[in-house]
Amino acid sequence: MRVSFLAIGEEIISGFREEKNIRNSSAYLYSLGFSTYIQLVGDKKEDIKFALKQAENFSDIIICSGGLGSTEDDITRFAVSEYFNVSLEENKEALEYMKEKLKARTGKDNVPDILKIQCLIPAGSKPIFNKSGSAPGFKIEKNQKIFYFLPGVPQEFSEMFQNFVLREIKEKFPHIKSLEEKVFKIFGLTETQIQKYLKDIGIPESVKISYLPSFPEVTIRIIGEKNERFFQFCDKVKEELKNFIYSENDQDNISKVVGKILEKKGFSISTAESLTGGELANLITDTPGSSKYFKGGEIVYSNEAKIRLGVRREVIEKFGAVSYECAEEMAKAVREKYNSDFGLSTTGVAGPDPLEGKPPGLFYVGFSSKNETTAFEFKFNIGRKYTKILCSHLALKILLDKIK
Amino acid sequence: MRVSFLAIGEEIISGFREEKNIRNSSAYLYSLGFSTYIQLVGDKKEDIKFALKQAENFSDIIICSGGLGSTEDDITRFAVSEYFNVSLEENKEALEYMKEKLKARTGKDNVPDILKIQCLIPAGSKPIFNKSGSAPGFKIEKNQKIFYFLPGVPQEFSEMFQNFVLREIKEKFPHIKSLEEKVFKIFGLTETQIQKYLKDIGIPESVKISYLPSFPEVTIRIIGEKNERFFQFCDKVKEELKNFIYSENDQDNISKVVGKILEKKGFSISTAESLTGGELANLITDTPGSSKYFKGGEIVYSNEAKIRLGVRREVIEKFGAVSYECAEEMAKAVREKYNSDFGLSTTGVAGPDPLEGKPPGLFYVGFSSKNETTAFEFKFNIGRKYTKILCSHLALKILLDKIK
Repeated sequence: MRVSFLAIGEEIISGFREEKNIRNSSAYLYSLGFSTYIQLVGDKKEDIKFALKQAENFSDIIICSGGLGSTEDDITRFAVSEYFNVSLEENKEALEYMKEKLKARTGKDNVPDILKIQCLIPAGSKPIFNKSGSAPGFKIEKNQKIFYFLPGVPQEFSEMFQNFVLREIKEKFPHIKSLEEKVFKIFGLTETQIQKYLKDIGIPESVKISYLPSFPEVTIRIIGEKNERFFQFCDKVKEELKNFIYSENDQDNISKVVGKILEKKGFSISTAESLTGGELANLITDTPGSSKYFKGGEIVYSNEAKIRLGVRREVIEKFGAVSYECAEEMAKAVREKYNSDFGLSTTGVAGPDPLEGKPPGLFYVGFSSKNETTAFEFKFNIGRKYTKILCSHLALKILLDKIK
Repeated sequence: MRVSFLAIGEEIISGFREEKNIRNSSAYLYSLGFSTYIQLVGDKKEDIKFALKQAENFSDIIICSGGLGSTEDDITRFAVSEYFNVSLEENKEALEYMKEKLKARTGKDNVPDILKIQCLIPAGSKPIFNKSGSAPGFKIEKNQKIFYFLPGVPQEFSEMFQNFVLREIKEKFPHIKSLEEKVFKIFGLTETQIQKYLKDIGIPESVKISYLPSFPEVTIRIIGEKNERFFQFCDKVKEELKNFIYSENDQDNISKVVGKILEKKGFSISTAESLTGGELANLITDTPGSSKYFKGGEIVYSNEAKIRLGVRREVIEKFGAVSYECAEEMAKAVREKYNSDFGLSTTGVAGPDPLEGKPPGLFYVGFSSKNETTAFEFKFNIGRKYTKILCSHLALKILLDKIK
């Protein structure tokens, strides 16, 4: 099973826009067992026709994105018309659909010329309606090959790919419908480490795994025949990685997962940040509704600010600001000041320069509750920004393990 | 002038890793005036050979990335050997280079077998040394076509592309050397708005523009023949966009630019955040050395926390927490509490739900110095996360305009 993708647009090869339509849909079809081949070309008719030929040589299914709008750069329809040697015709169904949408939105049903152009599609092709935008896509079949042309606007592409293209592909390859899908959100392992775990467990031949890393988390999607081996494999993955899997829901991140538990149990938190400089509070407050459990936080960058928060001067003098002891005092002090159930703190050396004779990448996360105040040491030499991000996630993971 | 790119790797088509090597180098060559064609394929010999053929058909220069490591997935060298019908040979120069690097690092110069594999390159090809990693690249010339094969590790690819491939391309197309490059870092306009400005100014035919958006900033790179028209155009762009260009240095972001001025002038700042929940302090502290001018900050999510900081209760009761008045009091209070030259504050409705009857996306940025305390209103309905990011950048832009 093979599929070709073709993204068309000067904005892609010039770096103007990041190509995500094809990245995501290729990853999805890959996990369904397809070999995928991807081409990206600019807005040149000759280049588009060249790429269409290669795509046709590679596979029976060809999915194209971009160049269907109304500006002079949008030349996909013209290239396609030349490639298949057919004329462009105003498609009645597409025009009707556009009229209805316009009428529903504006009350008027006259379609301006600039939009009418978008209803010009190659003779013999079938329009693909666009729920989220204006330009319709179209589908052409020729010599057992199926070409889909969709707009490049991500939301439109995604909707039409899911609801039209993917549905047709599933019809064409009915065994796909019997596939089962399982998602794990993982924190604390790199893609490479996860891959090693999965290989050690033994990936069944019928199972495909796709990865979506988003530092410092990784989402893995396991797809396979719906049978006992599949479920056994997923169970084993879950068991082996139980310390790292924090959710089985694609839409989650660690801030949301922690937030849900805090809200459900009626707990509140506050934060005292040195190393992370606001990254931790920022991560917490990225979650809608966080004001219900996040009582507030302080960025205590200087020693004076730490002492004003409630860290004892002698602790800093004796152990330094980058220490277990300081992290503990910060977590406890902020918890007490904000009268919250939990306090989290971060202190360390963000770099690039050492601090108090301690190397960049050394840091501490403090945790405090009514019953317990403790701190954890970490060392990752991954640069300032990544250290801040990682430390913030570690703080939430520590909290998660305490409250779940 | 045409160039083909080929990224090889199952990790790319499966979404395991984002493809950036080719995105960036394609954008760069595009701005030098090349038509670029990009292919992405998995780790299958047949697919790689298929793609090499297309690349060769498209252009005289072919740049490939990935599959040169030592694991069983790394099959680029084998596919290439079949494609050109030549054997693989252990390259002495490459092995010698590897030995020296190992010796410098470990004191020993015996190369383990797993690394030796990487020195196997197609007979007749020329090794490209790898300063940042282990696997060498190689260059093959055949029938006036030049193929470059580089490792897929971003840092290694980038270094070898810049220092070897790009240098050779500049030799081959000497007029490139006469091109002039100008970079503008822009905040406050979308790519589309910038494009419109530039079109209105009139882009000379010999000038190419590439865009690198990174929300909410956009970097544009203007490249053209080094002549009066080029400089006039750049001057006009600078003049027209003067309210939006905050730097002409590729490596800058707004946090760095503000930081440099604060440090140079010996000013200090502190932050009081409601809406942004730590995003602003986080942005400030992403810059190395920020502890020199950032005195600290507070995330005053609740009204109680705002009052504890120093906002008068009656201000919140009369105007609400989402108001000019509250933003001003927050900025002033945090400046006084932290004894800093400037105070910045943010308050607003991050969403998705309204607050105090005010809609998501409405927010205020407060600014306070010894001489002036003021606030600015904004309304952007772009979702919670983007609102936080945008608001933080706006706060720094407001500060920048006050201190520059």
